[in-house]
Amino acid sequence: MKKKTKKVNAAILIIGNEILSGRTQDKNIAFISNWLNSNCGIIVNEVRIIPDVEKTIVINVRSLSKKFNYVFTTGGIGPTHDDITAQSIAKAFDLKYNYHKEAYKILENYYGKKKFNDGRKKMAKMPNGSKLIYNPSSAAPGFKTRNVLSLPGVPSILKSMIENCKKYLIKGSKVHSRSINLFTVESNISKKLGVIQKKYKKIVDVGSYPFFRLGKIGVSIVTRSTSKIKLKQVEREILKVVKLKKIKILKI
Amino acid sequence: MKKKTKKVNAAILIIGNEILSGRTQDKNIAFISNWLNSNCGIIVNEVRIIPDVEKTIVINVRSLSKKFNYVFTTGGIGPTHDDITAQSIAKAFDLKYNYHKEAYKILENYYGKKKFNDGRKKMAKMPNGSKLIYNPSSAAPGFKTRNVLSLPGVPSILKSMIENCKKYLIKGSKVHSRSINLFTVESNISKKLGVIQKKYKKIVDVGSYPFFRLGKIGVSIVTRSTSKIKLKQVEREILKVVKLKKIKILKI
Repeated sequence: MKKKTKKVNAAILIIGNEILSGRTQDKNIAFISNWLNSNCGIIVNEVRIIPDVEKTIVINVRSLSKKFNYVFTTGGIGPTHDDITAQSIAKAFDLKYNYHKEAYKILENYYGKKKFNDGRKKMAKMPNGSKLIYNPSSAAPGFKTRNVLSLPGVPSILKSMIENCKKYLIKGSKVHSRSINLFTVESNISKKLGVIQKKYKKIVDVGSYPFFRLGKIGVSIVTRSTSKIKLKQVEREILKVVKLKKIKILKI
Repeated sequence: MKKKTKKVNAAILIIGNEILSGRTQDKNIAFISNWLNSNCGIIVNEVRIIPDVEKTIVINVRSLSKKFNYVFTTGGIGPTHDDITAQSIAKAFDLKYNYHKEAYKILENYYGKKKFNDGRKKMAKMPNGSKLIYNPSSAAPGFKTRNVLSLPGVPSILKSMIENCKKYLIKGSKVHSRSINLFTVESNISKKLGVIQKKYKKIVDVGSYPFFRLGKIGVSIVTRSTSKIKLKQVEREILKVVKLKKIKILKI
């Protein structure tokens, strides 16, 4: 029996002037994308990086949450004035922005009543009806509002929380990939690859990426599909037509 | 006399399944953003990462080119079947997609007539009326179509070409920034920072970013403005109200 492919997709919305300005190198996109595919069979189809501006966050949350099964936001859920993700998501969905009782308790316990100041209290405010994403490293929880999951921007904290998103996600079919590394240049194999891609359209995605290593030029042909069998079949066909031997290199 | 601030903005459109899937860590966003601000006073206001799908490229090129002064695309201008940036931009602007005479000559000279195969010829095809962005490292030029500048995805080649974009860009006012690093936690200073941000709204942008280093927790307060004088003024005010000493740390 043929296994049916279940496509579940997501967008990532990075909220933060520091990434846009180039001051900080983003590390969350590749991590979330890899995690979603490996653990949940969810494919990231779009990423946007936007500034800490309420109107911009509202517009993007609205449009991405309609277009994709899930939206993951990162950044802007801390205690300072530029942390406006929660209030902006509330606005995007016309929800009230209130203290989440459980989040309030978690934070009050963590800091102690005396040190539970206004900035810290702010981290317990969320769009009404949000579900918590627990934070094992620094207490302040993320939250899920409709199909939008909000995580912090600090990569180490985000990583510690990602497993707690799992229970909110429907699983899709995992996309497997194979890399075929050849010592050649793209333009020598581009025509043959194009023919194979056409043949396997919508079944196997064939990408080609040049690399430069140890003074040599090469091409990584990356094939991606939900079917491992089709991947192997395409790899055999590629190696047959390009008439080159696969080389072993370390993963990039 | 007051110097008038000239705001020029841009968006970056990263085209490539390999970045979306998490296989490749993007290195171009931070580089382009820093370069544009330092060299041209152009601020990047949005970044999008999208797959190699013609329809998606067309929609995004159309919407971003209307919204921003410039759009920089990266990726998809090589010789293979998945390199569809040029034809998609032509479609977005209803332009013909033809050989660019000068680009054809450059590539023919570079490869030699005998080795100038179809894949290589493809790299000379561009939206009608495009201007070239010369490529000193691997010959295949980028191109400017209307307000969209298309560069390759390989970071080293992109870097070698970026200076050749300058002649097509109107200069804006450079945004300067200062970092104030403190050993404290965000929630201890969030209220005071919020007051200062309110006071200098639209003149100085105040961002706050936690860091963890050498076992200590700290906060980088990053101020950004086109006015160096206002930046110094805000820094003095911040240090006064937080009652903490600036620490010297290496730049992140």
